[in-house]
Amino acid sequence: MQSGSAVTTQLAAYAAGHQYSDLPANVRQEALRSVFNILGCTIGGARHNGVDTADKALGGFTGPANVTLFGRGRKADALHAALINCLASSIYSFDDTHEQAVVHPAGPVASAAFAVAELQLVSGEAFLAAVALGIELECRLCKALTVPPAKGSMAWSGTGITGGIGAAVAAGSLLGLDMPAMRMAIGIALSQAAGFRAMHGTLCTPLMPAQAAQTGLRAAFLARAGFTSSPVALEGRYGYLSVFSDQPDLDALAGGLGERFEILRNTYKPYPCGIVIHPIIDACLELRRTYGLDASQIASVAIAASPGAMALCNNRNPRDEMQAHVSLHHWTAVCFVRGTARIQDMDADTAVKDPLLMAFQDRVAANLDPKRASDSAEVTVVMTDGSRHTVNIEHGIGSTARPMTNAELETKFAGLVVPVLGQARTRALIDQCWTLASSHDAGALARASA
Amino acid sequence: MQSGSAVTTQLAAYAAGHQYSDLPANVRQEALRSVFNILGCTIGGARHNGVDTADKALGGFTGPANVTLFGRGRKADALHAALINCLASSIYSFDDTHEQAVVHPAGPVASAAFAVAELQLVSGEAFLAAVALGIELECRLCKALTVPPAKGSMAWSGTGITGGIGAAVAAGSLLGLDMPAMRMAIGIALSQAAGFRAMHGTLCTPLMPAQAAQTGLRAAFLARAGFTSSPVALEGRYGYLSVFSDQPDLDALAGGLGERFEILRNTYKPYPCGIVIHPIIDACLELRRTYGLDASQIASVAIAASPGAMALCNNRNPRDEMQAHVSLHHWTAVCFVRGTARIQDMDADTAVKDPLLMAFQDRVAANLDPKRASDSAEVTVVMTDGSRHTVNIEHGIGSTARPMTNAELETKFAGLVVPVLGQARTRALIDQCWTLASSHDAGALARASA
Repeated sequence: MQSGSAVTTQLAAYAAGHQYSDLPANVRQEALRSVFNILGCTIGGARHNGVDTADKALGGFTGPANVTLFGRGRKADALHAALINCLASSIYSFDDTHEQAVVHPAGPVASAAFAVAELQLVSGEAFLAAVALGIELECRLCKALTVPPAKGSMAWSGTGITGGIGAAVAAGSLLGLDMPAMRMAIGIALSQAAGFRAMHGTLCTPLMPAQAAQTGLRAAFLARAGFTSSPVALEGRYGYLSVFSDQPDLDALAGGLGERFEILRNTYKPYPCGIVIHPIIDACLELRRTYGLDASQIASVAIAASPGAMALCNNRNPRDEMQAHVSLHHWTAVCFVRGTARIQDMDADTAVKDPLLMAFQDRVAANLDPKRASDSAEVTVVMTDGSRHTVNIEHGIGSTARPMTNAELETKFAGLVVPVLGQARTRALIDQCWTLASSHDAGALARASA
Repeated sequence: MQSGSAVTTQLAAYAAGHQYSDLPANVRQEALRSVFNILGCTIGGARHNGVDTADKALGGFTGPANVTLFGRGRKADALHAALINCLASSIYSFDDTHEQAVVHPAGPVASAAFAVAELQLVSGEAFLAAVALGIELECRLCKALTVPPAKGSMAWSGTGITGGIGAAVAAGSLLGLDMPAMRMAIGIALSQAAGFRAMHGTLCTPLMPAQAAQTGLRAAFLARAGFTSSPVALEGRYGYLSVFSDQPDLDALAGGLGERFEILRNTYKPYPCGIVIHPIIDACLELRRTYGLDASQIASVAIAASPGAMALCNNRNPRDEMQAHVSLHHWTAVCFVRGTARIQDMDADTAVKDPLLMAFQDRVAANLDPKRASDSAEVTVVMTDGSRHTVNIEHGIGSTARPMTNAELETKFAGLVVPVLGQARTRALIDQCWTLASSHDAGALARASA
């Protein structure tokens, strides 16, 4: 257990000394997979209506066009780009998730790091190290707030309140901040940590990570210029840990830095929706496939759901796409009626308001199974003839127990990126991304994604 | 008592229908005094080193130069200007404070409103109405979080977490948002509410209101463009009120809207430091004046201090200007040694490190007087010859019981603005400001303050 008396300094010292050459091979690989996955999500989300709305609403206030807006065919200033790119990366709820802490770490980190990589020359190795660092501290912080033995509130947006530290240290390391400046960057970023879950099902859900990306990146620039913050931002009286957790776990935050890596617990979503719905989707698709079920013959569906699924996604009859992201009823209906779970299956017009899907949701009931893990679900269907079928999923696809393979990640990437960049450019981008570590210019990846 | 079931809608409806013609004369007058006071603070703080640092660090990312940076001789895009102007307004801790809730309301509100007033033509009346509205909702929200019967944590930055709603509704009303859009603006702004008090004594203290100004203004632009948020951002499950208060007071938030006005409890600081230090300064200056005390003959100073003063400002031997803002020991020393309490009395080189002041602080002891109000203090000096003198201040200057007169506000304004704009322009600006209500163009006030 670490003493809390200097935990901000401890993290800042680790961040300032962090280097690619010190990282084990599996950490390097997971950083690359995290970049690969979030790049696909960012490009795939780039033309979403919500991203358009934000970019147009704020475009008139933007500065020098130095940084690529992925998939949007133009550049903008670094701070606006970090906001818009991170917004795109999370707008389909299709990004990544730490296995224990409910945080989607790569969006804020990669958006900030890509912005710096277009302002100055950044090698692929330095870029991957910065992303690994940002994800590491973001996941550690979120874990320290809420994962037992920590006690914290479900009401906070995990990514909203921890994304800033990830973006700040990733950008800060690329800017070459020393320990004191890094400590200031962390404090500045944390002073702007924000977000709560009443926003679920609205465009503010992706805006919260986006805001974390922007304020974290800005914190690094401010700290480099000498702007001050508290050197005990985390542990100080009236500090970050005291306001965001009832009982923070300092060991999760700062124990075994450089030895134990939370990034190894980062997972990638196979389906574009709240991660706690994923095992339910696995179960439904398996039921449909195994038993050749016809949705019209299903009388009812009973789901034994994890506490996380019940708390975040027990929302019947969503009214729009953003609400559909977090509706387990919607996705259960999609699985049985369509046999799929794709982005187009939450389209506002052709899916959310599809009468077949809407009617099916009335036959779905979710029940709390208090001891069930978030990556687990059991689904039972009762057919109109009275027969029953049950599938229990111990670990959903994409969990750390059943991780997405690189091939599965490529399929996901292509599904997201081909509609934006076309087949040929997508294929080239996939190859370019997997060889990022040997690139002398990580920004080239951004420019190839315009 | 209002029902909490639709409080976000209630506030949005009030904001969307808010008009100058509906405001009582005393509310109009207090809005004008709030604008006058914060304008002086903004110009006076414009050339502070911390403002320079932020403006330079971020200046390379700014967009079209449409909005004045007060006192800095140039313009910037609206979002950057809102950030920098609000930063300047609060950098000397010299702004305004609600009598009960520890919130400094005018900075975020006026910074956002001035930005809109340079993007489109805004009449003086519309401007004052927008400022009155923003201050009203900001103060109501802060009161609803922490002032009994509400129960909330002292650890949050009141202005950081409530400034955004003030800026959003002020800007939103000038942009003509209807109720649904206003409700979205409120939700977007609240989703980014941030700030905690470990930042006291650093440049992040003024950055927290600045961030509120910027995100509040941005929320109004986003809502106008159709960006979505929760319609129950305040009262919903996992909503704003649930995360920022243990027991919110809904009546304080939404009771008697349009009838009871919290802006009438806004107060203006006579001294550039934490407001809870003010009655101590009053007592010290009165002791020195009444008894003709010579600081070298003072053996000790005992202060009976309010809980607020003890919690926020019981900081001996500050190391820099930002720490001096919130050190009651520093200001006690300044009062007895110099007989003043001015901006220059916290200069890092000539005041904070003044050996006479530093040595005197060792003779100052503050003791908690649990029942004492924040605008009250008792100071007792023991002289080296053993004699004693005591002064008790029931209500410090600048409290609602002893409000700053308009003439006192002018003196404060001149003290802040003359060093930046010179005597003649300051005088003209004072006159222009007091006649704001009859102006057809509130933005002219900004342009006259460049």
